[in-house]
Amino acid sequence: MTVQAAKKTLAFTGCLLDRADNVRADREALGGHMNWRARLLTLDGMMPALDDAGRLAWGTLADAPEDAELVFLGFDRGEDGGTGRACFAAVPAQGDPRPRMANPQLWNLMAALSPEDLALYGGARSLVDWHARHRFCPACGGPTRIAKGGWQRDCLADSGGCGAPQFPRTDPVTIMLVEYDGRLMLGRGLGWPEGRFSALAGFVEPGESIEEGVAREVLEESGVRVRDVTYIASQPWPFPSQLMIGCHAYADSDALTIDETELAEVRWFTRDDVAAALGDAPDAPFTAPPPHAIAHHLLDWWIAR
Amino acid sequence: MTVQAAKKTLAFTGCLLDRADNVRADREALGGHMNWRARLLTLDGMMPALDDAGRLAWGTLADAPEDAELVFLGFDRGEDGGTGRACFAAVPAQGDPRPRMANPQLWNLMAALSPEDLALYGGARSLVDWHARHRFCPACGGPTRIAKGGWQRDCLADSGGCGAPQFPRTDPVTIMLVEYDGRLMLGRGLGWPEGRFSALAGFVEPGESIEEGVAREVLEESGVRVRDVTYIASQPWPFPSQLMIGCHAYADSDALTIDETELAEVRWFTRDDVAAALGDAPDAPFTAPPPHAIAHHLLDWWIAR
Ligand SMILES: [Zn+2]
Ligand SMILES: [Zn+2]
Repeated sequence: MTVQAAKKTLAFTGCLLDRADNVRADREALGGHMNWRARLLTLDGMMPALDDAGRLAWGTLADAPEDAELVFLGFDRGEDGGTGRACFAAVPAQGDPRPRMANPQLWNLMAALSPEDLALYGGARSLVDWHARHRFCPACGGPTRIAKGGWQRDCLADSGGCGAPQFPRTDPVTIMLVEYDGRLMLGRGLGWPEGRFSALAGFVEPGESIEEGVAREVLEESGVRVRDVTYIASQPWPFPSQLMIGCHAYADSDALTIDETELAEVRWFTRDDVAAALGDAPDAPFTAPPPHAIAHHLLDWWIAR
Repeated sequence: MTVQAAKKTLAFTGCLLDRADNVRADREALGGHMNWRARLLTLDGMMPALDDAGRLAWGTLADAPEDAELVFLGFDRGEDGGTGRACFAAVPAQGDPRPRMANPQLWNLMAALSPEDLALYGGARSLVDWHARHRFCPACGGPTRIAKGGWQRDCLADSGGCGAPQFPRTDPVTIMLVEYDGRLMLGRGLGWPEGRFSALAGFVEPGESIEEGVAREVLEESGVRVRDVTYIASQPWPFPSQLMIGCHAYADSDALTIDETELAEVRWFTRDDVAAALGDAPDAPFTAPPPHAIAHHLLDWWIAR
């Protein structure tokens, strides 16, 4: 993908489904849509399957394992402007309770998808993964069951549980370009290939704003204090369910004190360095993050600014 | 609080503690800080206690119930620039597993706190509440125990559990000013007092960006399509642990189709209407959200723009 193409869309955004949240809580309506017209996203474990045209493959609800729970993803747009079909994903009863990370095979498959299909897959993946890892109530330890078309799970009060509802997680993560004197701070994580650098990032914690999360994370990882934090863009990241919040900040100093439990290297790069890396120049001083990562988009934004 | 004062700080931001995340994972260091100098936040259930000077009241670790779990909040700044003291909050073994909401008594107490104390209390409250409601592993139903100073819980693999870690939740919520032809869309929730209006809001869902969340929520609740979503400000909101993400968007139309399962009214207000409400004018056409809500700050921003 060229830099130009990456600028057009942030990966995992642009899903065309109508989430139709009014249907989720309406058992009767939802049941009515679980018919022969409904589509079931074909998943091989958590991997997407592609049809002959390179699009996400779909089956019918009859393809779901008998004991699977069905998550309502929304309605597709329908052909010729007609009513869309209800789209579902299945959560197998014996799913792997560990969070599934991305791997090279998955990245190959995802790179072949259209932006709309990639976004649909990402959202479905986050939800299916959440259900697989939340079969029990964190408040009382009792079993839970799918509710509201998969946008909730309920602890079973009728079998002695506390009855508390649970909701899918979305974990906000700040990821930031830190600038000092026209140069950008980028870091290389522990275990990353030599030369691969990206923006620092970290989870927003309870009790802090986005801006405070940015400042704390940069200080923790690099020892640098920042000011004037501004928001640039955001992206859902389905490994397992982050909301990446891209920001820019100015540093008060370029003196680095690296957190060696998190990072192998932190360095400052010039505008020419970043442009060379984005252009995949053979003599680029570092390897840029891939186009599906919001960090790539943030670097594009910085160069274009 | 005047409009002027509200602009200075967003409620629940500005906590002065150093979160010292490097200490959390270091059992020995953390244990070393759990000494006679350490401070324990005084909580009455989930309510804050105030000392004679109107500040948050603190005790020592000896004041914690014997079977309580201790959450490490961070270090205070220390007197005369000296080393700060480690600050903790206790999670009682028999906490209420239901999420605790704000009530008028709590708002009175919180209004008396300094911004720094309010932020500290909010962050501590979110964490203590999360622990009280997450004593069991959602993956296997087994018991969990506090880890990393309260920034994690671990399923007990040594007593047959799956060993999965859990992390405190922070739930991103978009809250947005929607503008059309110089007027703002505000809504009145079901059950709200007559005349009280605020910005529409909703949780960001798996598989969507902040901008997509804003557009979906506005469409669902008001029937209006929006474009050009921009970020304004964010605020942690500890009831129980939201991250409020304040945005602005332009509407394509002012024709409303209200979601009556969520909202009692949606109306368009002029700049004069909003200014009158923020100024508590007796003839204001609506009651503005209170100064501790980010919606108040967003309205200030809109008027000042
Ligand atoms: Zn329960
Ligand atoms: Zn477990």
